[in-house]
Amino acid sequence: MPPIVALIGRPDHGKTTLLEKLVPELHERGVRVGTIKHHAHHGFAMDIPGKDTWRHRQAGARIVALASPSGLGMIRTMEHDSDPRLLTARYFTDVDLVIVEGYKTSDLAKIEVFRTAARGTPPAEQASHLIATISDADIRPGLPRFPADDIVGIADFLIQTFLEPTAQGGETKAATVFLTVDGREVPLNAFVSQCIDGTARGLVSSLKGCDPAGEIVLSLGRRCRDHDR
Amino acid sequence: MPPIVALIGRPDHGKTTLLEKLVPELHERGVRVGTIKHHAHHGFAMDIPGKDTWRHRQAGARIVALASPSGLGMIRTMEHDSDPRLLTARYFTDVDLVIVEGYKTSDLAKIEVFRTAARGTPPAEQASHLIATISDADIRPGLPRFPADDIVGIADFLIQTFLEPTAQGGETKAATVFLTVDGREVPLNAFVSQCIDGTARGLVSSLKGCDPAGEIVLSLGRRCRDHDR
Repeated sequence: MPPIVALIGRPDHGKTTLLEKLVPELHERGVRVGTIKHHAHHGFAMDIPGKDTWRHRQAGARIVALASPSGLGMIRTMEHDSDPRLLTARYFTDVDLVIVEGYKTSDLAKIEVFRTAARGTPPAEQASHLIATISDADIRPGLPRFPADDIVGIADFLIQTFLEPTAQGGETKAATVFLTVDGREVPLNAFVSQCIDGTARGLVSSLKGCDPAGEIVLSLGRRCRDHDR
Repeated sequence: MPPIVALIGRPDHGKTTLLEKLVPELHERGVRVGTIKHHAHHGFAMDIPGKDTWRHRQAGARIVALASPSGLGMIRTMEHDSDPRLLTARYFTDVDLVIVEGYKTSDLAKIEVFRTAARGTPPAEQASHLIATISDADIRPGLPRFPADDIVGIADFLIQTFLEPTAQGGETKAATVFLTVDGREVPLNAFVSQCIDGTARGLVSSLKGCDPAGEIVLSLGRRCRDHDR
């Protein structure tokens, strides 16, 4: 699973503008970036009104996909909020780094974006797991701080922190096993994760051209009754 | 994996309009529907220009997700066309039926939509795997035919064909195993599918609250070198 870093900060402090500059800089250095935008509230809009897929969804389709040779889009109904690590494990299989906007209350590694000229004040509560700030003011003394226009410096910091061989990102060190049964996540402790990880990799290792140390996704369709003994 | 049916027919013959009426009818009968719109060409548009996620994607993010408690959207770059069965196995885990617009040349079960008043002529080539037509003209003698406004009749037909216990849809009968390693799909023959299916279900069966006959998705993150012996 790729490492995840969250950009937090109030609206208008420049999170998206920063991402717009940071993604191309990382891309130029060979880092494939995925992003997640989190809305804590129920509002959700992600398609172009009037398009066929939009019409499918309006009609009540639970999951709608748009597939072309260059892109794939998928929009689906959820009954609960998504955990960013589960989203990453399931959907972000071929990127090197996931940058999240939001998930302020999660335990993800976080970078706070703040500029004094913007509306609002810095988050009153102390955010946990902060690793740096991007700001024109020293709002978190003791943490690394970058000006918002130091895109090269910010990219360097992300690469050093999350992607170099010595990175202590944590995520890539342990067995990262994600299991759902009938769409519900099954919580796994470290021992069970290790068992499943070892068994599944053993299975895959005998298949031609498979790297058993790789990122493995295994999907099994529901069995029909005929096949249950 | 839910069964899949493809609506084929030229533009303006009413495929999307039909779906707009059919999805609510099926929904009312307790059938959860997913849809896939296929574009054979490279054009791809599925987000609202100016939105944060759109800006992430414009900046070059390979995968962009929008997550809220009520919905999840994901848009990603592809290097090749997507197989509708793989899409279904991977993403459509909690629907009962997938209706596809397009994939005319696939071997999916197909329903041809045609109306004489529309522009264009019926497909000249004989489409394979046709199971019915929705038309005001008898374009495929011998096949079941429904008028476009017979939504109840069309829904009955789909339920009988794909969802009743005696349905010979085929898809739900065999082990439907989908495996990717480092984002590449690994082709599996029937024997290997059965082996993997049995082993993975055996693993899951001992976990609390897991139905080993259920729809199972297992994701293993890449192992770092420290963990390879």
